[in-house]
Amino acid sequence: MGAVVDLEPSALDAALDAIRSTIGDRLTINPSVRQTHGRGEAFHPDMLPDAVAFPISGEEVSAIVRICARHGVPVIPFGAGTSLEGNVTAPYGGVSLDLTRMDAVLAINASDLDCVVQPGVTREQLNTELRDQGLFFPIDPGANATIGGMCATRASGTNAVRYGTMRENVLWLSVVLADGTMIRTARRARKSAAGYDLTRLFVGSEGTLGIIIEIGLKLHGVPEAIAVAVCPFETVKGAVETVVMAMQMGIPLARIEFLDAVQVAAINAYSHTDLTEQPTLMIEFHGSDAAVREQTELVKTIASEFDGGCFEWATLVEERSALWKARHNAYFAAQAIRPGSQLVVTDVCVPISRLTDCLTQTHADIAREGLVAPIVGHVGDGNFHVFLSVDPDDRDEVERVRRLNDRLVDRALAMDGTCTGEHGIGIGKQDKLIDELGEETVAVMRRIKAALDPAGLFNPGKIFAGQKNSAA
Amino acid sequence: MGAVVDLEPSALDAALDAIRSTIGDRLTINPSVRQTHGRGEAFHPDMLPDAVAFPISGEEVSAIVRICARHGVPVIPFGAGTSLEGNVTAPYGGVSLDLTRMDAVLAINASDLDCVVQPGVTREQLNTELRDQGLFFPIDPGANATIGGMCATRASGTNAVRYGTMRENVLWLSVVLADGTMIRTARRARKSAAGYDLTRLFVGSEGTLGIIIEIGLKLHGVPEAIAVAVCPFETVKGAVETVVMAMQMGIPLARIEFLDAVQVAAINAYSHTDLTEQPTLMIEFHGSDAAVREQTELVKTIASEFDGGCFEWATLVEERSALWKARHNAYFAAQAIRPGSQLVVTDVCVPISRLTDCLTQTHADIAREGLVAPIVGHVGDGNFHVFLSVDPDDRDEVERVRRLNDRLVDRALAMDGTCTGEHGIGIGKQDKLIDELGEETVAVMRRIKAALDPAGLFNPGKIFAGQKNSAA
Repeated sequence: MGAVVDLEPSALDAALDAIRSTIGDRLTINPSVRQTHGRGEAFHPDMLPDAVAFPISGEEVSAIVRICARHGVPVIPFGAGTSLEGNVTAPYGGVSLDLTRMDAVLAINASDLDCVVQPGVTREQLNTELRDQGLFFPIDPGANATIGGMCATRASGTNAVRYGTMRENVLWLSVVLADGTMIRTARRARKSAAGYDLTRLFVGSEGTLGIIIEIGLKLHGVPEAIAVAVCPFETVKGAVETVVMAMQMGIPLARIEFLDAVQVAAINAYSHTDLTEQPTLMIEFHGSDAAVREQTELVKTIASEFDGGCFEWATLVEERSALWKARHNAYFAAQAIRPGSQLVVTDVCVPISRLTDCLTQTHADIAREGLVAPIVGHVGDGNFHVFLSVDPDDRDEVERVRRLNDRLVDRALAMDGTCTGEHGIGIGKQDKLIDELGEETVAVMRRIKAALDPAGLFNPGKIFAGQKNSAA
Repeated sequence: MGAVVDLEPSALDAALDAIRSTIGDRLTINPSVRQTHGRGEAFHPDMLPDAVAFPISGEEVSAIVRICARHGVPVIPFGAGTSLEGNVTAPYGGVSLDLTRMDAVLAINASDLDCVVQPGVTREQLNTELRDQGLFFPIDPGANATIGGMCATRASGTNAVRYGTMRENVLWLSVVLADGTMIRTARRARKSAAGYDLTRLFVGSEGTLGIIIEIGLKLHGVPEAIAVAVCPFETVKGAVETVVMAMQMGIPLARIEFLDAVQVAAINAYSHTDLTEQPTLMIEFHGSDAAVREQTELVKTIASEFDGGCFEWATLVEERSALWKARHNAYFAAQAIRPGSQLVVTDVCVPISRLTDCLTQTHADIAREGLVAPIVGHVGDGNFHVFLSVDPDDRDEVERVRRLNDRLVDRALAMDGTCTGEHGIGIGKQDKLIDELGEETVAVMRRIKAALDPAGLFNPGKIFAGQKNSAA
C-alpha cells in the first residue's frame, strides 16, 4: 500500500498518452485550464493538476481511472469549482476529472418524486428542467454547484431545515471505484435496509473513495404558496430565540437565514436594497395559502416577543427572487467591502441552544482583531459563515485570519459542534477533524479509505493529511 | 484474517471465565435465557449463543469485546429481540450481548430537539420520558423495539414519510469497535460535513461493524393537533393513487398505512373493530388545528376521486390510540387467523409508481398458492409486508412460502425496488442482497467489514454468508 509520492514524469506521460488515445483532445495540459482546475472559490493556495480530462460518460471515467491506477497517477474529480476548502486542488498533481460535460438529466419520475442525473448537472439547470412538472430540487448551497459536487461535499444550504441536506436527498449513486469497477449503491426505492449504507458513505467523501457518475435524487412538489418574511431584531439573541421557539412549536419553516448587521449593510451597498441594518432573519414559508398565512402570523407573533421589529413579507415571485438574490450575493457583497481581497469562509455548526453564545463571542473576537467580517447563518441548523477578507500577499493578515478561524472552530467544538457544517474538510480542516472526532474515529475513516482506495490515488491529500492518505 | 469457525471449547471456556470475572453473574449459560436470545420474532431456525451477557456500561461492553477478540469468540448484540430476519441468532455460537440493562435516557436537550440514550431504551420508554416536555421520538416500527436495535436495523415504520427513518434521526453514535476501542461518530450539531458519515455506516450494519453503546437522537415537538382518517377503497389502485396524488401535492402526511381487505378482516376479528373489509388507508395528520383540518379535507377530496368510500376521522386521543393499537396488532391478528402457526414477514419496498402492480401481482400469487396472507403497507414509502403463516414442521409449506417470498422479492427488484425496506438482511436475504446490488457492490461492503472487523467476530453470518464473512 504505497503512499502518494511525486510522480515520475515517465509514468505521468504514459498515463496522459493512454488517456489521450481514449478521449482525444478532451484531455488538455493547457496552463489556464489547469489553473482554473487547481483552486476552489475561497482563499487556499492554488495547486494545479498536470492535466484536465473532460469525460462524457461513466465508461470514459472508468477507463481514465483504470489508466491512472496502472500508472499511479492521482485523479481529482471536479464540478463547478465552487468548493471552499481547497477540495479540488491537486497537491500531488495528477489528472483533474472535469465532469461538467456529463450534464444530462436522464430521467424524471414525477409519480415517484425522483430523478436521475449525471454529476455535471447544476442545481439551477435541474430546477429549470423540473419547472414544467411542478417539481423542484430543494438543496441550495447558494452557488450554482453541480449535483455531483454537492454529493461529494455533502452540501446543504438554505433549505436544509425543512428538506434536509444532500445526505437526505440522494437515493442512490453510481460510482467508479479505484480499480475502475462501476457499482450502484442502492435501488430506486425510497428507503432500504439492504446492507451497509454505501450511498451515505460516498456522500461527503469529497472524491476520496470513488468518482460519482450517476445520481438518483429525491424531488419535491412545488408548494402552492411561498412567502418570505424579513425581520430585523434588536439583538442576535432575539433572532436566534425566535427560531428556537418556532422550531419547538413545529412550525415547518422552509428556510431560516440569519444576517448580522454588518452583512445587511454590505448587502444594501452591493445590491442596492434598503434593509434595516440590524441582525435580521429571512424566513421562507412553503405550503397551502392558508398554511403559509397561518405560519407567517405565528412567527410574527413569536418575533415580536423577542424584539423583532417590522415584519415585511413578500409573496410575489419577483419580490422573493430579489430578496434571495440579495442573500445569495452575500459572499460577493462581503468581498466588495474590500475590493481585491479574497475571502476565508468559516463554517462551524453548533447545537442551536449554543448559537447565540457562539455568535456573540465570535463578534467580540472579530471586533478585538479590528476586522470587518460579515456573518450569515443557516440558523435553523446552527450553522453560520464568517466572511474573513484577506490580502493573500499579507502574511501577517493571513495568519491573523487563520488564528481567528482556529479559535472559532475551537469554540464550536467546545459547544459540541462541528468544524464544518457543509463545506467539508478539504485541505483546510484536517487537524480540526481530528480535534473534533478524535484519532480513533479518524483512524476508522482511514481504514475505510485504505480498503476502498489502497493506492491512495483518489483526491489525495484531502480529508486526511498528505502522506498519511494511504493507511499503514 | 481468519474465517469464523466452530469454537474450540477451551477458547470459549476461557472467554466465559474472563467475562464472568468482569461482570459476575450477569453472564449466564442458562438454557432458557440462551433460547430467548437465539431467535427473533418471525420464523427462522433458532441458533443459540453459548452464553448471554448483560453489561451495564459501555466500559463493560468494551471489556467483553476485548475478551472475545482475544479468544476468537463471536459477539452478537441483542435488544428487544423483535427483529424479523434472524438478525440476532448465533449460527457460530458465542456471546449474546443483551443491552437491555443499559436503558437510561442520559440527557434531553429540549431547545436543541435532541436527546442522548443508551441502546437498551425502548421507543415507548423514551416517549413516556419525553411526554412532559412536549417532545416525541417519531420512529415507530410497531414493536416496542430498543433504540439500539432500531439503529442497527435501520428501522422505520409508520411515521417515515414525514419524519424519516432511523437514518435521518440519529445524530451520532458511540460504538465499541472490534478491538474494544470506543469511538464517537459525530458531534451534536444538526448537520456536519466532517469526514465520512460513520453514523450512517453503523446505522443499518446489524451489529456486524460495532456495538452501539450510546445514541444521540433528533426529537420533534408534539404537534398541536393530530387527526387520524380511515378510508376504505373499492380497489388497491384507488388507495395507492390517493397517496401518490397527496404526496405530489406536498400535503405533509405524517403516517399513511395501507391494509388490504384480508388484513382488515383479521383486525376486526382480533381487535373487535368494525372496519369496512376493503383495501383501506389509515392516514395521520400532524399540525396546527387549521392545518390538520385543511389537510384532512384535501385528502378526503382526493380519495373521493379514486372511489374512496366513507372518510371517518378521529381526533380524540382514545379513538386514535384504539385505531393505531389495532394497526400495531396487525401481526398478531394475522397470526390469530391460524393459531399456533408462525409468520414469515416479507418486506419489499418499490417506487410508489410500481406499488399497485406489485401489490396486485402479489395478491394473485397468494391466491394461486391458496394461502391466507394479509398485507399491510407503509404505502407512502412503497414498503409493504405480507404475513405468510407457516407450520414450521411442514417442510412442504415452509418451502412454498419461501418460494412465494422469493418471487415477491424478484418482482420488487424487477421494479427497481429493494428486498428489504426496514427489516434488514440478517440470515434471511443474503442471496437477495447480491441480486439487488450486484457482487461488486456487496464486495465493497465486505471490504468495509474486513477493514473494521478483520476477525469477523461481530454478529458473524449476518448480511454476508457464513464463511465469506471475513473477506479474503
